[in-house]
Amino acid sequence: MKQENVTASIITIGDELLIGQTLDTNSAWMAQELNKAGIWVRRRVAVGDVRQEIWQALDEEIQQSDIVLLTGGLGPTADDITKPLLCDYFGGKMTVHAETLAHVKDIFENKLKRPLLERNLRQAEVPDNCTVLFNKRGTAPGMWFDVAATSSHSKRVVVSMPGVPHEMKGLISASVLPRLKAEWQVPHILHRTLLTAGAGESFLAERIQQWEEALPPHIKLAYLPNYGLVRLRLTTTGSKLPELQHELDYLFAELQEQVKDVLVINEDKPLEEALGQLLLQKGKTVATAESCTGGYIAHLITSIQGSSAYYEGSSISYSYTAKERMLQVHNSTLTTKGAVSQETVQEMLGGLLKQTGADYGIATSGIMGPGGGTPDKPVGTVWVAVGNNERMETHRFLFRFDRMRNIQLAAANALLLLFRFVQKDAS
Amino acid sequence: MKQENVTASIITIGDELLIGQTLDTNSAWMAQELNKAGIWVRRRVAVGDVRQEIWQALDEEIQQSDIVLLTGGLGPTADDITKPLLCDYFGGKMTVHAETLAHVKDIFENKLKRPLLERNLRQAEVPDNCTVLFNKRGTAPGMWFDVAATSSHSKRVVVSMPGVPHEMKGLISASVLPRLKAEWQVPHILHRTLLTAGAGESFLAERIQQWEEALPPHIKLAYLPNYGLVRLRLTTTGSKLPELQHELDYLFAELQEQVKDVLVINEDKPLEEALGQLLLQKGKTVATAESCTGGYIAHLITSIQGSSAYYEGSSISYSYTAKERMLQVHNSTLTTKGAVSQETVQEMLGGLLKQTGADYGIATSGIMGPGGGTPDKPVGTVWVAVGNNERMETHRFLFRFDRMRNIQLAAANALLLLFRFVQKDAS
Repeated sequence: MKQENVTASIITIGDELLIGQTLDTNSAWMAQELNKAGIWVRRRVAVGDVRQEIWQALDEEIQQSDIVLLTGGLGPTADDITKPLLCDYFGGKMTVHAETLAHVKDIFENKLKRPLLERNLRQAEVPDNCTVLFNKRGTAPGMWFDVAATSSHSKRVVVSMPGVPHEMKGLISASVLPRLKAEWQVPHILHRTLLTAGAGESFLAERIQQWEEALPPHIKLAYLPNYGLVRLRLTTTGSKLPELQHELDYLFAELQEQVKDVLVINEDKPLEEALGQLLLQKGKTVATAESCTGGYIAHLITSIQGSSAYYEGSSISYSYTAKERMLQVHNSTLTTKGAVSQETVQEMLGGLLKQTGADYGIATSGIMGPGGGTPDKPVGTVWVAVGNNERMETHRFLFRFDRMRNIQLAAANALLLLFRFVQKDAS
Repeated sequence: MKQENVTASIITIGDELLIGQTLDTNSAWMAQELNKAGIWVRRRVAVGDVRQEIWQALDEEIQQSDIVLLTGGLGPTADDITKPLLCDYFGGKMTVHAETLAHVKDIFENKLKRPLLERNLRQAEVPDNCTVLFNKRGTAPGMWFDVAATSSHSKRVVVSMPGVPHEMKGLISASVLPRLKAEWQVPHILHRTLLTAGAGESFLAERIQQWEEALPPHIKLAYLPNYGLVRLRLTTTGSKLPELQHELDYLFAELQEQVKDVLVINEDKPLEEALGQLLLQKGKTVATAESCTGGYIAHLITSIQGSSAYYEGSSISYSYTAKERMLQVHNSTLTTKGAVSQETVQEMLGGLLKQTGADYGIATSGIMGPGGGTPDKPVGTVWVAVGNNERMETHRFLFRFDRMRNIQLAAANALLLLFRFVQKDAS
């Protein structure tokens, strides 16, 4: 199936990727955008700031993919070696690009208000055999190289971009994707994803095995477990959009029916976004009172644009004092039941709803580790309360992982509890 | 330099990595651990759930690296194809591994309390020519294959692990690294990293150019810009630990001296951790009042273990009501000056310090976008106040990026402001 499609490779360059100092968010974002445009990413490769490694990766990828996208190594410092390498690889000569030079000068003189250094001027030099892609967000331009055809590829391109995420994103959206779409008649790649909770990956697989085995060969089903939830994704590829869409919709409806008792949402979006939409529909608001999750739930909710329409705020009360002063938890509850208890999260939720006037609330208290556990409250113990002024639900969880994952699991489960509470709530 | 070292390739498997649905955190973590053990990661490759792509990647990497680590594709569902592929690649035969079988049965009978399915039993089958690495955190075992030597590699290994992060981490720490260290006499790879603020990458490069050019060839300097801050990292590789350490310490001291006016910390740790250590040293506490950063600062602070010793809590006040009720901001300030104003962040900070009793505080209010901007307060406008009961500092920022990056930049800058405030504070 995939050989018929337009394929791309992504090469990210930088030692920081190979020693684990930087998380490679660039290629995930590029992969998403290419995929939406109907271009299948067949490989992602990360290499260091080492000439022969970059050269070899380029050599290998251009033999097998139609499109090779590179990021990184275009900065003004000595460890940035991509540009001269590309110039040599494609047999070009370095030359000053007038428009980029004017842009670099403008950035330094008018925006940064700093003297322009020789090394910054060199940012305006490019190989004379590339098409320059103007980078309005930074000094290093993108470079587009047309590569000679082979027996298996009628045309090929290599595009180099800076590794700074917002500069790369600007170039992809404004220049690279429009040009790629103009060069190739790409097939359509369509996905439909749903989110389930409460059943493991094997049980889902078992339940839908017959249905899965009967899927036509151009349809793929993927299982994506995360934070105790499982996403199921259907993917189809082909050239006739209405037919593809129709078939995918039909199969996706079948899939939803098969898993309806564990289905949370039938869209590929984070739970915090689904919760936000539900609240908007109902014209309701939410607030959070977080102890052990330390603001992570608030962060998830507020990372969604427009969340100020339904999010009141949060009290993050790490200390006893903060729990008492900010949320009116009784000192006696804290001293007799402990901060990590059903009673405390209930009082936190009550105090929160009163204080913020929100319609719904979430309260969390737990021990995330690595220290702080006791025999009857081991590390990973988390109490969650969700509810409104009429009704509260509390749940006790025991997570067994490291601090960060325990925080993420507690947040995901708390959001899920509130989502279901709001869904069922008739008020 | 690198050819003399023990080198590794990391291959991550899964379509979700190629459509950008999942961020590849596994290989960043593995790279860190390998690096600490003196093993240089020369390439990271991500491929889809496609047999020929996995095969080819394995083929290419094993020709050039001593060690190839694979994650993913070991689950119980139809899109998991790594295990049969490895069995074929190394010419083995599938066989049941008794210890793993007992473990799988135990997990289902005693932990999950679910019936065991045929597909789960298959998790206990392994190629008969591998060494099984026991996975106490899950059902899919790790598999260690010894590979025949070549003229350039006296020994080689391929290790396959599940893609579930905490299972992979358990296997790496408990089995893979100890075995790798026993097989190879690895060289030492040492890093020293410092964090600067207030100078761009080019200016730093210009200032230390002469010093950088005089560095011995086995020492590398990298510039790592992020969130308006720049990290500088010195790396050395070699076999004699005391000499390497001594030389690196000496050069790192020189580097600190060169950048002392913009130096923030001389360690490779997040600002929130450095702030925590500073507060612990001084025996002081901190609280946060976040509007536009929506809990992200609280999340950063509380993601550090032990933060409950110095973190009181946070009021995240998204609405006017929440700002008034939770932080005693005057309604008149909000209506005359606006929520995004110097006066409002000052009152937020004052209310926060009074309410939580914390020694220091951070308050933020801004417009993160994409909506909500006005001509005099465009999207990206952020007011930050830091201080204590004696003194407050306020700063206005204008960030120009997307919502998430604006939040991250505001949080990083607010933490930096408070870090410097606490450093200078004599109280």
